[in-house]
Amino acid sequence: MKTFKIGLLGLGTVGGGTLNILQTTLTEIKRRIGHNIEVRIIAVRDLNRARSVDVSGIQMTTNPEEVVSHPDVDIVVELIGGTSYAKDLLITAINNGKHVVTANKALIAEYGNELFALANQNNVIVNYEAAVAGGIPIIKAVREGLAANKIEWLAGIINGTGNYILTEMAKPGADFEQVLKTAQALGYAEADPTFDVEGIDAAHKLTILASIGFGIELQFNKTYTEGISKITAQDIQFAKQLGFKIKHLGIANRTASGYSLRVHPALVAQDVLIANVDGVMNAVMVKGDHVGPTMYYGPGAGAGPTASAVVADIIDIIRAQSQNIEDRVPGLGFKAEQLAQAPVEAIDQICSRYYLRCSVNDQAGALAQISAKLADFQISVDQLHQEPSLEDSEAVTLVMITDKVQESVLNQALLALTSLGVVDSELQRIRVADLG
Amino acid sequence: MKTFKIGLLGLGTVGGGTLNILQTTLTEIKRRIGHNIEVRIIAVRDLNRARSVDVSGIQMTTNPEEVVSHPDVDIVVELIGGTSYAKDLLITAINNGKHVVTANKALIAEYGNELFALANQNNVIVNYEAAVAGGIPIIKAVREGLAANKIEWLAGIINGTGNYILTEMAKPGADFEQVLKTAQALGYAEADPTFDVEGIDAAHKLTILASIGFGIELQFNKTYTEGISKITAQDIQFAKQLGFKIKHLGIANRTASGYSLRVHPALVAQDVLIANVDGVMNAVMVKGDHVGPTMYYGPGAGAGPTASAVVADIIDIIRAQSQNIEDRVPGLGFKAEQLAQAPVEAIDQICSRYYLRCSVNDQAGALAQISAKLADFQISVDQLHQEPSLEDSEAVTLVMITDKVQESVLNQALLALTSLGVVDSELQRIRVADLG
Repeated sequence: MKTFKIGLLGLGTVGGGTLNILQTTLTEIKRRIGHNIEVRIIAVRDLNRARSVDVSGIQMTTNPEEVVSHPDVDIVVELIGGTSYAKDLLITAINNGKHVVTANKALIAEYGNELFALANQNNVIVNYEAAVAGGIPIIKAVREGLAANKIEWLAGIINGTGNYILTEMAKPGADFEQVLKTAQALGYAEADPTFDVEGIDAAHKLTILASIGFGIELQFNKTYTEGISKITAQDIQFAKQLGFKIKHLGIANRTASGYSLRVHPALVAQDVLIANVDGVMNAVMVKGDHVGPTMYYGPGAGAGPTASAVVADIIDIIRAQSQNIEDRVPGLGFKAEQLAQAPVEAIDQICSRYYLRCSVNDQAGALAQISAKLADFQISVDQLHQEPSLEDSEAVTLVMITDKVQESVLNQALLALTSLGVVDSELQRIRVADLG
Repeated sequence: MKTFKIGLLGLGTVGGGTLNILQTTLTEIKRRIGHNIEVRIIAVRDLNRARSVDVSGIQMTTNPEEVVSHPDVDIVVELIGGTSYAKDLLITAINNGKHVVTANKALIAEYGNELFALANQNNVIVNYEAAVAGGIPIIKAVREGLAANKIEWLAGIINGTGNYILTEMAKPGADFEQVLKTAQALGYAEADPTFDVEGIDAAHKLTILASIGFGIELQFNKTYTEGISKITAQDIQFAKQLGFKIKHLGIANRTASGYSLRVHPALVAQDVLIANVDGVMNAVMVKGDHVGPTMYYGPGAGAGPTASAVVADIIDIIRAQSQNIEDRVPGLGFKAEQLAQAPVEAIDQICSRYYLRCSVNDQAGALAQISAKLADFQISVDQLHQEPSLEDSEAVTLVMITDKVQESVLNQALLALTSLGVVDSELQRIRVADLG
């Protein structure tokens, strides 16, 4: 029995949760691994702040440099967030030969390539299970559990705030602004909700999932990102009538010549299991060529779930200590020299079905004109729904689901439709995700 | 780059699927592990049988002993099934210092304790991801992904045949016998469906899940097993009216003084995600004390999914070769000497809500008599539904959901009810699984 020593950067929600697990569940963990784990030193901002966890006997410091350079520390756990100082600290930790665990999705998505390269040079491990979908062991499932597969695609509800908002907006009388306020009051959304609502947080996670699924470098800057702030309660109701739910998804799939990485709202057929994942819960579907469709569901945030993933990473590092370095699970699941180079395609290269909503003057022939114009672009309409406009008694609201079409073609068609003058400029366009 | 050599026992559905992956996906797998995998020898029953997989260049034998004793073979993959000859072969393989991968749930559930002990003595690994829920990496999720948690309970749809039958029985006009015939025609159920329909297959899997969840020895003989053959289409309809679906579940939970291991039909509230897992698909919920509720979903059977798990096990063994033996993930997820000894309790010790259906004579006071008798045993009724009997115009069918009660107490109450003479002897009783 060896004792492995942890240096903790940060003692906020997740840091406190991590310390709590290592105190309350240590006996159960020792039954599993046959080794001891000790939190040796913690860097905090304020030494005098009252804590809900017991830090007696643990060295406390306000200087994070002390943690990443501490001679006793085997594993540095970074839970302070941000991509600037956190990155510098982890670079020092890695150069000092420390293994690293982080829950920092932004850091991995934006700087993971260089961190993994540096870790390889220093023969240490960088683990990040908590960075995607909180407590769900999705990184392990993709990097190891499905390692016999060529992953065809991944699609996930990977931002709990967004999923909570869309779930609540499906209830009668709810609208985006009002639901967002409730989410903020409940602590599900930040005062500035941009990161969650505009899809940036989900894009960080999707970037990571795509890399470990396909064996490609992290390419956050090529991940298309669209938020949910333009989705209306009316869209959710129309989608429902057509047999769909609207979910904010991160989707990564292979294309003819490369990959598509994207975060956007999408219609999902009601009978697909992930369409029924509601509230703040997360779920990731992974389609492997041999296994077929699988799904992983659980809480995507919170002290306990996130810390559960952090401590699982610590356990994995402890077990991998004695392994030959080349036998360890690589940072992105594939050997660094084997990462594929195929391009991430622009969003307008995807093929998808589309939900279209527009308002047209209630004049005979408008529908015929629209259909004809779409037909000019070889776009056929799968489902059609029409109802009187709520705002304007002269107009009708037209809702369509198109057949599959390349987005660049659809864009041209929509432009043509708008210049035709039959539809208003506020045409709503939402992609359909076919996950069957 | 090393080449690891596989000896395959059996080339049926899963054996063929495994060979197929190791041929079609080897390039992708090598990108992950940096080692080569070669199928060196395969034992089959009939050398001359036509195969859908290419066996050219692979030594074929009808003598399985040759595989488990072959000097070149590093890993023996057992896919012949059964618990007698398969066990003998794996004992020889282990004694010969071979690592073992098996998809054989009966073998692990019934003889795993001695196989893991023998493997420990011989410093080899026995992996069995494919034994539970086919392609879903549930063994890895519980043994590793959730290793920071004390697992509170597990509940799973772990037999695709049973889930298919219950799903189809929910459709108008379907009954058990007729749906079973369809399942047999589609190849989802065996000619003798006992193993699936009476819950034995699910009990094997639940036994394994309970062991890795709680860190207890495999105790198949103490797993309570009840099948679905007594569930009627009427029960499914009544359950639906009360807000539930009926699923065949394997459930393992902690009790006041030990554990409960059981397979039986159960009512699950419609808004719990697992209630919406339909057809032949499998799903396992795992509740950890820190992570909360998580769920793992995917195909539970078939060549591709099962082989996906088999090959993931091979990859794990290859990666663990260089690891100190004491650092490897233990067979049951916990160190052998740390397995807990608390008892598995008899089924009548569980506390549950219950669905009760009975036929009563349409006489004033019958309901009052029943309620009074239940009240004598401190059992209160949560939900009540009454409708005219289809068969007997003099009678009504009464459906109740009780509050939580110990099953031994419920049994006494039901006995008292029957002897009262107001209800018929064909009283239906189905447990409610509260998985919220």
